[in-house]
Amino acid sequence: MKLSREIQDSIELRFSTLARQMNGRGERIISFGLGEPDFPTPPAVVEAATKAMRQGYTRYSNPMGLPELREAICTKLARENGIQVRSGEVMVTPGAKMALSLALASVLRPGDEVINILPCYPSYLPQILIAEPEAVIHNLDLRRENFSLDLDRLEQMLSPKVKALIINFPHNPTGHMLSRPELNGLGHLLAERDCWLISDEIYERLNFSGTRHLSPGSMPALAEQTITINGFSKTYSMTGWRIGYLVAKEPVMKIVNKLQQHLNTNVVPFIQKAALAALALPDSFLDDYNQRLLANAQRLAEIVAVTPALRLQPSEGGLFAFLDISQTGLDSDTFCSGLIERYMVAATPGIYFGPAWEDHIRISLVTDTVSFTEGVQRLQEYVGTLG
Amino acid sequence: MKLSREIQDSIELRFSTLARQMNGRGERIISFGLGEPDFPTPPAVVEAATKAMRQGYTRYSNPMGLPELREAICTKLARENGIQVRSGEVMVTPGAKMALSLALASVLRPGDEVINILPCYPSYLPQILIAEPEAVIHNLDLRRENFSLDLDRLEQMLSPKVKALIINFPHNPTGHMLSRPELNGLGHLLAERDCWLISDEIYERLNFSGTRHLSPGSMPALAEQTITINGFSKTYSMTGWRIGYLVAKEPVMKIVNKLQQHLNTNVVPFIQKAALAALALPDSFLDDYNQRLLANAQRLAEIVAVTPALRLQPSEGGLFAFLDISQTGLDSDTFCSGLIERYMVAATPGIYFGPAWEDHIRISLVTDTVSFTEGVQRLQEYVGTLG
Repeated sequence: MKLSREIQDSIELRFSTLARQMNGRGERIISFGLGEPDFPTPPAVVEAATKAMRQGYTRYSNPMGLPELREAICTKLARENGIQVRSGEVMVTPGAKMALSLALASVLRPGDEVINILPCYPSYLPQILIAEPEAVIHNLDLRRENFSLDLDRLEQMLSPKVKALIINFPHNPTGHMLSRPELNGLGHLLAERDCWLISDEIYERLNFSGTRHLSPGSMPALAEQTITINGFSKTYSMTGWRIGYLVAKEPVMKIVNKLQQHLNTNVVPFIQKAALAALALPDSFLDDYNQRLLANAQRLAEIVAVTPALRLQPSEGGLFAFLDISQTGLDSDTFCSGLIERYMVAATPGIYFGPAWEDHIRISLVTDTVSFTEGVQRLQEYVGTLG
Repeated sequence: MKLSREIQDSIELRFSTLARQMNGRGERIISFGLGEPDFPTPPAVVEAATKAMRQGYTRYSNPMGLPELREAICTKLARENGIQVRSGEVMVTPGAKMALSLALASVLRPGDEVINILPCYPSYLPQILIAEPEAVIHNLDLRRENFSLDLDRLEQMLSPKVKALIINFPHNPTGHMLSRPELNGLGHLLAERDCWLISDEIYERLNFSGTRHLSPGSMPALAEQTITINGFSKTYSMTGWRIGYLVAKEPVMKIVNKLQQHLNTNVVPFIQKAALAALALPDSFLDDYNQRLLANAQRLAEIVAVTPALRLQPSEGGLFAFLDISQTGLDSDTFCSGLIERYMVAATPGIYFGPAWEDHIRISLVTDTVSFTEGVQRLQEYVGTLG
């Protein structure tokens, strides 16, 4: 493939290498770094995988996914997301990342333009360029005051050459969730336009603030052109299992299905059975998890409220908070380097998520409350030394 | 991505759809179709996966693969293949197909030329075009008389624009294995040339004829430029598990590692633990399997010997035999359609493996001996009606 622009290592890798080095020196790091649940995969999911393996779900299978899993995903989409689709419009993929890659590869042609929202998950940019090396990427920053979509600027950017817009709500890294006015605005701007809306909803169930998650695919005006991406990693602590899915109408599905056959063959069938067991878990499964995220979000807000050099637009959902450090006068890399070296707290520099976000850092909320509290206290202490 | 040339459905899918339709009509089909072992994944492998899942090997992990698995692969490569590499030169992938895709994406640039050997596994051509839509593919047919590499024609085709040659021995579909003179010939033609040799060795352990498998990566003259592809599917009946690996020197490894991070994140860690258990199985594990393949290969040869319209160059290894049907006067699609419709035996038309192989059909040897014997008898009867 054409590798005209440099593809960076993934943020997961860069971070974990550093943490490994420090742990190797025996230093006790509190990590606000990675986006991975800190509890084990639920036992019912592990047991379902074990049972399916023993039953022989170990062979080649349908590239689209097991029919029973795709039916269960349709039921979930109708019930939780208001998205009405047939199982032929759902494809199971080895991870949500692969779902996004296949979606991009299927809709982009050389020279096509893509709008990408910043700050963003750092793999989006390399994923776009791997899918279509000749894509032209336009980055659109969220509004700085409240992390909402800048619909006016979006309207200006939407030329006929723009073939895809990628969104991700609940948002990594800001924790912003799509509001009804924003969704209506997207509907107004995109409907009838020859532009795919790729909606990465991987954090949808982590909506601890009580805000309701809105799926663009549920809007009649957008349903035909929306490609919904989701997965099991963040909700069910199945990050290593590599299972996600994409939802799209036939023209996209025909292409992604062929790409899947030639790249992935199929998703491991016993892992698909495990995902089916995950979907069958009661909603209450998520209560503790969301309450813990909420408690940590509130703890962070309390500390920020009494720390003049920090500002925070509270997270509504997802795994992260995005902290404004502009008053410290440090750039995000310098800030985070000092934080880990002097206070052994690992956070992620805002610059990784977009060039305009040099004055923010990302804090993962998914740490036990005791460690989290200690971590934010160390953060406060660190900021106190900067003044 | 650019989809200028039509990408077909994979052969696995086309075949299984037809077989499903006929099974739906209650007809008892004997399948000589697919390349999948007919026994379950070994219990020790299933148990290792179960244990690892319970131990928490369910999280994000090293994109290159678990160190213990890569070390075990290095040991295997040294012992069985004579390939001397460090674990940093091995990357675990979700299937050998993905290993090939990543290898192609990493070495091909727009306009680069690739030599592909025909007949070939039908996914190779779409995989090349997905990896680099602007690649120029030169197909080189094996010699018709004995399925060996045509080194004279290869020499003529090797211009400086050719950046990769893909080979696959033991060969699908012919069962040919690379001989020492062929390997030496490759060494002579490729050494010192700026051309990658991509060697797909997925069938290496299925060498039932007693012929020794030769790995190009073991040849000092070729070691630097060889990318070895392998996997666990065919040897250990782990087709659905999606685990393979690629072996390459640093310049390739740097790129495939980044592609892996952004496309696949990592291979499921508990599946990597299962693969480690597979590598620990005693060599005797394969004896029955290879003896059964040999018995079926011999059964086929016996029937062909007394059927004037059929000819066969015996398989040396792999899962298949490639039968010459030219004397029947039928093209391979017509032949196979009649065979399945009138005698309920599913075989794969040679045309799927290359346009010049219209007068061959592929027979999978991996069926229990009783069914296989009945299948070849039906085949013989069918050919008798064509005269």
